[in-house]
Amino acid sequence: MSVTLQPVALTPSSDLPIGDFRTSTGGVIADARLRYRVFGDVALARAKGASLVFHALTGSADVENWWEPVIGPGRALDTSRHPVIAANLLGSCYGSSGPSTVVDGSFPELTALDLARAHLPLLQHLGIERLAIVTGGSLGGMVALQWGLITPVPVDRLVVFAAPARASAQAIAWNAAQRLAIEADPAWQGGRYPVLQGPSAGLAAARAIAMITYRSLVEFDERFGRRQTRRAGQFDVEYYLRRHGEKLVERFDARSYVALMGAMDSQDVGDLEAAGRRTAQRVKEVVGVGIDTDILYYPHEVRGWVEGYARGGANARYEEIRTPYGHDAFLIEFGEVESILRGER
Amino acid sequence: MSVTLQPVALTPSSDLPIGDFRTSTGGVIADARLRYRVFGDVALARAKGASLVFHALTGSADVENWWEPVIGPGRALDTSRHPVIAANLLGSCYGSSGPSTVVDGSFPELTALDLARAHLPLLQHLGIERLAIVTGGSLGGMVALQWGLITPVPVDRLVVFAAPARASAQAIAWNAAQRLAIEADPAWQGGRYPVLQGPSAGLAAARAIAMITYRSLVEFDERFGRRQTRRAGQFDVEYYLRRHGEKLVERFDARSYVALMGAMDSQDVGDLEAAGRRTAQRVKEVVGVGIDTDILYYPHEVRGWVEGYARGGANARYEEIRTPYGHDAFLIEFGEVESILRGER
Repeated sequence: MSVTLQPVALTPSSDLPIGDFRTSTGGVIADARLRYRVFGDVALARAKGASLVFHALTGSADVENWWEPVIGPGRALDTSRHPVIAANLLGSCYGSSGPSTVVDGSFPELTALDLARAHLPLLQHLGIERLAIVTGGSLGGMVALQWGLITPVPVDRLVVFAAPARASAQAIAWNAAQRLAIEADPAWQGGRYPVLQGPSAGLAAARAIAMITYRSLVEFDERFGRRQTRRAGQFDVEYYLRRHGEKLVERFDARSYVALMGAMDSQDVGDLEAAGRRTAQRVKEVVGVGIDTDILYYPHEVRGWVEGYARGGANARYEEIRTPYGHDAFLIEFGEVESILRGER
Repeated sequence: MSVTLQPVALTPSSDLPIGDFRTSTGGVIADARLRYRVFGDVALARAKGASLVFHALTGSADVENWWEPVIGPGRALDTSRHPVIAANLLGSCYGSSGPSTVVDGSFPELTALDLARAHLPLLQHLGIERLAIVTGGSLGGMVALQWGLITPVPVDRLVVFAAPARASAQAIAWNAAQRLAIEADPAWQGGRYPVLQGPSAGLAAARAIAMITYRSLVEFDERFGRRQTRRAGQFDVEYYLRRHGEKLVERFDARSYVALMGAMDSQDVGDLEAAGRRTAQRVKEVVGVGIDTDILYYPHEVRGWVEGYARGGANARYEEIRTPYGHDAFLIEFGEVESILRGER
């Protein structure tokens, strides 16, 4: 399989300066830049159209790290037909401008719309005039929905996994609880901490909260039950959550985490029919994918905006992934993700 | 209505020394004591039987503070017929022995069975020979289920609201995330902090997590939606969670919170049919009450143990409260709680 994988694995990262970026709420990121990757041949992307992929909260432009089975030549995101473009989202900590690159703590608040808008200069820079697929899950799905509202180029299919058009009060509440956990760690200091001296205990606690919302009752019961095999006197599920917290702290900055949670909270496309009408101007087909066991962005939320978009005139349809895995299924159930991306269902 | 309320409101608290209390896991609480109240006439309770009420995680023996509409003369828990006995649970911080009364941090781990067992000397002390109702919700419901396994006196009805017979991995996970949030506050110090110098930020974050699991998507959306009316730039739901955190910190000790979460995690009656069989020895009727929107202890969990108990020979039936309020409905939907306690459904 190395023949299939090499073109993807060898894709280098690039940095694009996008100038002073003005946010939706009136802030400015001076001399902003985007770290991005193009999986496949840029000339082909210019000639035949590209695909655009948005990552989730703690993801990155390294799409092969989290969607490996669906990206590459011949795969659902077929890089030999439509090269894939992915950028590290603005506000994240994997190369694009974010709150950890602005030392004085003045990094402005970001919205999901801002995260989409930051890709406009990238598409222009690469000379992309058509998008075959625009897709992402969770926060990436929210950004994809925002892209549908502003895309300057035609889009064949917008495929949104496990994302709301409007963040619910409960979803905001989960993020609020995570903010409280991060703030409970005095190393947070309102985000003004030196690099590598961040609120590791607070971020780990936040991650633990999030991990529960990413999975399901059924999966946790099947996988962990009430077993205590990893550490004496500790349930395995607690060991798992603590381990996930520790792992995130090693690879992610709390400031970026907080900034991107804010973007998630901001998610609101406004009136659904109007958003559907606007999206239909340049997007041929919209697919909203709910996950039956998702307790973060419930499937009926996805179905709801799909129906609203359709009423507004978008060619929108709803698909559902049935799985024990909950919200994270878009990163696990690759067979389902693949068939949906291929348009086979 | 003051005539109805006065007998309850005037009930004084009493302290009962229960000697050295040996926990299920082999620990000892030296010179343990229970703070309790009897709502109504003890002589009547001896002659006609009492009711026994267990409070939830941050509740207390002051039942009128959280179940006011259902306790009193003529009410569902009719104190003029069967006086109500309620004790502050062992491990809590409202007068009974708990981790904040043992200065060296040696307070042992507690199980839900321990919390039930601590009531044995209380019943003996009061001379109670029959219980008309044994009831509680959430942690109180778990303790009620444990009581069914060990009650030395006959029980007419065991009414368990929103409680599992076996804490799920997800329920344990919510508590684990709360422990992580508390530990993220360095004031926690493994529970060895001076009085009033506890991990207030950590406990507030834990409370925020818990509050989300106590309510529902629908209620939060109806009540808060995406409004920002309380504080500029902050969603009302976040204001609400922060306020609840601050309020809990003023009235509850983090050590007790952690101790009682541990008791919740311990909840496991073992084989359901065997537990039902054992419960049936002294309990005439078992009513398990699920809440349709409960995301902490799902209604199908309650239905599951009811069915298991019934297979084991208990006279057990399932009732469901339909409500937008989620888990907390047993503290809100008093009409439903009342009719269930009265046995009218």
